[in-house]
Amino acid sequence: MTMQPVLIAGQWRAAQSSGSFRAENPATQTPLAEEYPISSWEDIDAALEAATAAAAVLRTTPPEVIADFLERLAAHLERDRDVLVEMAHLETALPRKPRLADVELPRTVNQLRSAARAARAESWRLPTIDTQLNIRSCHAPLGPVLVFGPNNFPFAFNSIAGGDFAAAIATGCPVLAKANTSHPGTTRLLAVCAHDAAKAAGLPPGSIQLLYRTSHADGARAVSDPRTGATGYTGSRHAGLKLKSAADAAGKPIYLELSSINPMLMLPATIAARGAAIAEEFTGSCLLGSGQFCTNPGLVILLAGPATDAFVAALIERFKAAPVGTLLSRGVAQSLASSVSALQAAGAKVLAGGTPGGGSGYSFANTLLSVSAAKFIAEPEKFQIEAFGNASLLVIAQSPDEVVRVLSSLEGNLTGCIYSDADGGDDNLYRLFEPLLRQKVGRLLNDKMPTGVAVSPAMNHGGPYPSTGHPGFTAVGMPAALRRFTALDCYDNVQGERLPEVLRNQNPRGRWRFVDGNWTQADIASGS
Amino acid sequence: MTMQPVLIAGQWRAAQSSGSFRAENPATQTPLAEEYPISSWEDIDAALEAATAAAAVLRTTPPEVIADFLERLAAHLERDRDVLVEMAHLETALPRKPRLADVELPRTVNQLRSAARAARAESWRLPTIDTQLNIRSCHAPLGPVLVFGPNNFPFAFNSIAGGDFAAAIATGCPVLAKANTSHPGTTRLLAVCAHDAAKAAGLPPGSIQLLYRTSHADGARAVSDPRTGATGYTGSRHAGLKLKSAADAAGKPIYLELSSINPMLMLPATIAARGAAIAEEFTGSCLLGSGQFCTNPGLVILLAGPATDAFVAALIERFKAAPVGTLLSRGVAQSLASSVSALQAAGAKVLAGGTPGGGSGYSFANTLLSVSAAKFIAEPEKFQIEAFGNASLLVIAQSPDEVVRVLSSLEGNLTGCIYSDADGGDDNLYRLFEPLLRQKVGRLLNDKMPTGVAVSPAMNHGGPYPSTGHPGFTAVGMPAALRRFTALDCYDNVQGERLPEVLRNQNPRGRWRFVDGNWTQADIASGS
Repeated sequence: MTMQPVLIAGQWRAAQSSGSFRAENPATQTPLAEEYPISSWEDIDAALEAATAAAAVLRTTPPEVIADFLERLAAHLERDRDVLVEMAHLETALPRKPRLADVELPRTVNQLRSAARAARAESWRLPTIDTQLNIRSCHAPLGPVLVFGPNNFPFAFNSIAGGDFAAAIATGCPVLAKANTSHPGTTRLLAVCAHDAAKAAGLPPGSIQLLYRTSHADGARAVSDPRTGATGYTGSRHAGLKLKSAADAAGKPIYLELSSINPMLMLPATIAARGAAIAEEFTGSCLLGSGQFCTNPGLVILLAGPATDAFVAALIERFKAAPVGTLLSRGVAQSLASSVSALQAAGAKVLAGGTPGGGSGYSFANTLLSVSAAKFIAEPEKFQIEAFGNASLLVIAQSPDEVVRVLSSLEGNLTGCIYSDADGGDDNLYRLFEPLLRQKVGRLLNDKMPTGVAVSPAMNHGGPYPSTGHPGFTAVGMPAALRRFTALDCYDNVQGERLPEVLRNQNPRGRWRFVDGNWTQADIASGS
Repeated sequence: MTMQPVLIAGQWRAAQSSGSFRAENPATQTPLAEEYPISSWEDIDAALEAATAAAAVLRTTPPEVIADFLERLAAHLERDRDVLVEMAHLETALPRKPRLADVELPRTVNQLRSAARAARAESWRLPTIDTQLNIRSCHAPLGPVLVFGPNNFPFAFNSIAGGDFAAAIATGCPVLAKANTSHPGTTRLLAVCAHDAAKAAGLPPGSIQLLYRTSHADGARAVSDPRTGATGYTGSRHAGLKLKSAADAAGKPIYLELSSINPMLMLPATIAARGAAIAEEFTGSCLLGSGQFCTNPGLVILLAGPATDAFVAALIERFKAAPVGTLLSRGVAQSLASSVSALQAAGAKVLAGGTPGGGSGYSFANTLLSVSAAKFIAEPEKFQIEAFGNASLLVIAQSPDEVVRVLSSLEGNLTGCIYSDADGGDDNLYRLFEPLLRQKVGRLLNDKMPTGVAVSPAMNHGGPYPSTGHPGFTAVGMPAALRRFTALDCYDNVQGERLPEVLRNQNPRGRWRFVDGNWTQADIASGS
């Protein structure tokens, strides 16, 4: 068995490794054939050195070249679709169709093409010009970006070709990717595509690099290294906070997506009017992909009453009847079992499921729990454990005041939803609850499940701590997601050719710029 | 002697204090009469509670009301100018004229009026609308903001009425100000103005609050309190990093301005062509306000040669001839003396000054030091100590390559300047050095001293760590400075009246909005 090479400085080469690992097929619970290296610091050091050199070139690489790379990569993913889907299916047990082939891969391709458009338009730069004082500023790439991808999206959030990757590259930041260890083979195939696209587009070596695994200590050292510009991390709260602590101490920006239970408020008039339809919709959203989404609805707040009783009964029936999917890994299965136990220990009642197994490979019964609002309010931290997977907790309140107190005790989340009556029957409660929920979430939805995260300029896939590390940034949505990996560069009394093209008087590409307080695509009169 | 009251929840009231302090007149080195409380946690707790209540009201307060407050405050400052200038002069020894009365106070007033315009225009919100998917997002206030102001700008960066204050209030965030202990009386007078303006404008109590001093432990507890939205801090690196560490651990945004030595590159052809004029300009910038500016040029990089010898000789002469000003406090004088000693101990040579005294009250001789680039490169951290005050270090390089290595070893700074020949004689060196300096600074200047920080939309008064805590944000310049105190609020499938006004289809005030990829002031067709 030969060890897979790492991608450093434009070369696939043997790792300087301190050990190796293999991925596992979660459906058969057997290790896969390929062996991957655990890189030692020498690999990280070499990659950071190459990334630094690449960053210097990419700073002045025309946006068209970067866009060309992103589009070539998108095309390569489409070309290699079957191989990619097969490998991702093997490593994650996510269904080939529709999930991997018809949903996630097209989304990833779309995301890369959106990033290419954002790179060309340069709207992420927010070019701002004061013609009277001749002070001009724009956002500019921060330098090498480390990307740590999650286990649950082998394509769309992969550290190669996923959202953070696309956002960083689109601004001209080299990416040093750390594969998620549950799908190293998928990441390797994506990196082969990206490496070929980078060569064809003429990106400097070191623009795209891949390591499979490092020690936790080396990971912390990497995010705080002087050569590192910023870090994007999606994954567990525990590992993420260790990286955050190291990055913070070194003053290095780090963007984290850590955990979220995505509270939903189902208001009484709408539950009375169309409880059965909402139960159907909720079950679909909650069990989709075995619930392994960062925006999976994990907490449902309801006001007690006969309609709620019927709604809960319908949920129980659907949860019991729905097929049990395979989970992504042994770790996910263990963590889900332990979260469900912790919720029970705190006083939540199991309404459906609650036990391991029921599907092929790693699996856990579709699980519904409930707790009274009074108990929730008494120990809110105990009921906000993320049960990542096919489980959700209902919180039953006896009064609007109890709902207010539940909402006030929520941690920060990526999303929050309110279902309310179309004819206005819930409007007073909406007005009471909305301001409280609004402050706890990045994206507020009405009458819509949170599991879809559209690639839209207006999307916020972010939220208050601890769902992310900073409430002002989004991981999805161009151009805002790109701005995470940038610094604000100001030019004071700098003339003509010495300015970045986007700040010069002539604006031949018609970029949107904020000039003297107004947005315009026009040139600046040369007398200015 | 009665203790001055604190301003909490809309009332001037006696502090819950653990002690008291008095300010000192730095020109006479004698304590001033007024006694100010060191607040205990009870005061902070009460203020955070009142701020939380205010934040809920301010979130939906019309921008006109907030703008009205900022304009009233500006007018009060103009009305009370003489009293304010007198008190600030007493507490800081900064000259009444031109500095306090003709420069800093008008700047502060201008800044408040700019903030009022930014509040009205709402451009800080970056409203972004996807009409096809009906996803809409905008920035929104983060909640209570703690402001810690510096010692060197009793008006313009005061925690009451200064830059961070104006930026936070303009977005609808209440401000809990911690006075700088070197000018509590000035801060109190400003708070009287602000309190009156807030009442007249109809802001909720708790919108503007003032404490004079707390323990370091209580300060750290306050920035990490769950009720705190964010913190703005300008001051010493040591104290700032302690607050950063506490805020980071709690996931609370903190914006810091810590220290900066503001490197300057004087290229050889321009020194040969107009060295005398530049020496004059540099001396003025470096000694202005006794050098007590965050953008004071503290490091000058020169290439050795006869023109440089003449330039250095001219600087020495001017530094020796210039009058010695009074420093802001005993602490500033001690810290300057200790920084100059540390630079000498590391191997820098004193060319002028280097000793305490020479002016009235706390003072230190105008000081010029020099070191070879070779020594600088060998121990770069030892020569990047901020000597806050009227001192600057020259670094003499023997070759462009040495300059490259000096630039590569620089920490992050607020500003960097390059002086170069107008006829192109330095252009090759400019192209070599600029990319290196660019990455180390927030604002890059050409042929201009950095000490002026214009209130311009294009300004960046920020920079890479450790000059600030995040390279993407500025403390000066509307609307960008406002965005520090905001979260990104996304609305997915939320209809009509439930949206914030700035995101609705109708746009009666003609706000600039990013709609489907273009900036526009138009309404959105209601079919969308």
